[in-house]
Amino acid sequence: MKIAGTTTRSIWVEPDGWRVGIFDQRLLPWRVARLTLASTEDAAIAIADMATRGAPMIGAVAAYGLAFGLAADPSDTGLAAAFERLRVTRPTAVNLLWALERVRRVVAPLPPERRAAAAHAEAARICDEDVAMNRAIGEAGLALICAIAARKNGAPVNVLTHCNAGWLATVDWGTATAPLYRAHDEGLALHVWVDETRPRNQGALTAFELAEHGVPHSYIVDNAGGLLMQRGEVDMVIVGTDRVTANGDVCNKIGTYLKALAAQAHDVPFYVALPTSTYDPATPTGADVPIEERSGDEVATVTGEGGQRVRVTSAPVRNPAFDITPAALVTGYLTEAGVIEGAAALAALLNERAAA
Amino acid sequence: MKIAGTTTRSIWVEPDGWRVGIFDQRLLPWRVARLTLASTEDAAIAIADMATRGAPMIGAVAAYGLAFGLAADPSDTGLAAAFERLRVTRPTAVNLLWALERVRRVVAPLPPERRAAAAHAEAARICDEDVAMNRAIGEAGLALICAIAARKNGAPVNVLTHCNAGWLATVDWGTATAPLYRAHDEGLALHVWVDETRPRNQGALTAFELAEHGVPHSYIVDNAGGLLMQRGEVDMVIVGTDRVTANGDVCNKIGTYLKALAAQAHDVPFYVALPTSTYDPATPTGADVPIEERSGDEVATVTGEGGQRVRVTSAPVRNPAFDITPAALVTGYLTEAGVIEGAAALAALLNERAAA
Repeated sequence: MKIAGTTTRSIWVEPDGWRVGIFDQRLLPWRVARLTLASTEDAAIAIADMATRGAPMIGAVAAYGLAFGLAADPSDTGLAAAFERLRVTRPTAVNLLWALERVRRVVAPLPPERRAAAAHAEAARICDEDVAMNRAIGEAGLALICAIAARKNGAPVNVLTHCNAGWLATVDWGTATAPLYRAHDEGLALHVWVDETRPRNQGALTAFELAEHGVPHSYIVDNAGGLLMQRGEVDMVIVGTDRVTANGDVCNKIGTYLKALAAQAHDVPFYVALPTSTYDPATPTGADVPIEERSGDEVATVTGEGGQRVRVTSAPVRNPAFDITPAALVTGYLTEAGVIEGAAALAALLNERAAA
Repeated sequence: MKIAGTTTRSIWVEPDGWRVGIFDQRLLPWRVARLTLASTEDAAIAIADMATRGAPMIGAVAAYGLAFGLAADPSDTGLAAAFERLRVTRPTAVNLLWALERVRRVVAPLPPERRAAAAHAEAARICDEDVAMNRAIGEAGLALICAIAARKNGAPVNVLTHCNAGWLATVDWGTATAPLYRAHDEGLALHVWVDETRPRNQGALTAFELAEHGVPHSYIVDNAGGLLMQRGEVDMVIVGTDRVTANGDVCNKIGTYLKALAAQAHDVPFYVALPTSTYDPATPTGADVPIEERSGDEVATVTGEGGQRVRVTSAPVRNPAFDITPAALVTGYLTEAGVIEGAAALAALLNERAAA
């Protein structure tokens, strides 16, 4: 990814070979500031205060946080304390626990003096794997964008996206955005419709990413997508997902479903980008996913430049945070194993791996 | 309508029997302030500065403004000057010109000394007709709500609306909101989902109206309606419209179409409320309606309590203001002549009237 003119990941090891740096997402898109993490506490605070966000990034930061803790106290007690301190930062984040357990599994059998370095190396592997996975998602999506570009005689391919499934949420590339960056880097003409994504306006983060990378884009209200599709101004939709259920239903940020309905009405292909780890065969259908209802304050007040907040209504508010896009509306799943069409194929892929 | 505990219209004649009062919509929903109009200039400024808005209200205020001008100078020159001053305030508002011409037609043949009083009386008739029309739309919608309530065993009927087609935009009742106020006044259990309606957040005005009238409601982001319909939490949708074309296509505030698609997907009845004067048989289909593209600043900055503004993005913005809901997605048109099903019936009604 590119930011402020340089190419970097969302998390990197500092020149001393030990400390790690991240961007402070609390200040984006208005200001690019970096944070250096050197202790378990640094990592825990960065996660808890949402200086970093997005499942893959949370996992990566937590993994390094465990390495820092082991440098200070490599005993079993030190390991347990650092693990616990990091675990409680975002109790519902699946990737957080997954990354911590993975590092613990590697270091627990080792003698204390080797634990910190091993944890640091494992954190680096977690990061590298995330990058490779997103890069592969990007390749899968690139082929789709190329096919559309071939029909457009040099006119830009218009892609609509909702929320931020971008590099800010991952170690690099993002999921839904990976195909966009790949296509742009290949020199394809591209234009991205960026849904504002009320109530939290994550579209501003996506627009920031695209601007830094030089990808042409337009920020639109969430209401606009239907008209744009009516006019033939959207060639494809790519979104991320928080969970894909056994039957292929897609749980994603509230409003995704309305775009999927419009895409179907106008024969616009609708793709969902995900690492296959986001596929959840244990949950039968979207109807079985509990939908988080968040604070009404997210809707009633809007935060803008410099953290300034205004109240936009004093009315009673309801704020469901996710919706379900039925599998029937999904043209394909963009995964690190390529484009998968249909939930059955996705399930087969997962079963194959489990058996392997 | 009720506001601040009293029952009133959006425009009224003051106790002196001559001056008129309106609410200053620039300060709503945060503060209820009234303006008294006593001259052509008062009326012209109220319209131009958007102290009043909504086609019916603009027409009513302009009609009284012409009466005030004739009181000051009842000559043909005075009439022409006042007419012109008012006409230029909102050059594209169809109702403005219609109301001015209607009053001019009445007063032009009269001797100067009778013109001001005749204009004032005609303005009052314009207001009364608007109220009667909206009240009739309310009756038509009431019957539909009653039918749903009968199936719900006392549970509230959940109605979703988009934008503000409420009493603030009309002399009383509103169009889309008229059935809601009638149903509430009849003692029916009702709950209204109020779409925020980005970018201008007219949902805050609708929520204000409903609160003043005591109608239970929840303010939601425009993204939420799809999920609510998935869960069976929406019994019907009622929206207003800026124009219905010959084939029944509905031009309304951006985002209306996405709700119509979701309503169809979940068998939720989707109604469009309109005085038949909003039907435009001269425009064949929605594809023939030019869609206004408004300033990107409406999207990039959000105005809240006390007029405070924050910038939510510095990205390039596109801001189309309306979309087209195809006639096939409309369950019925709520008009002053009752519920009309299908564009053909709407056209027949209009032809009948033109022939009469």
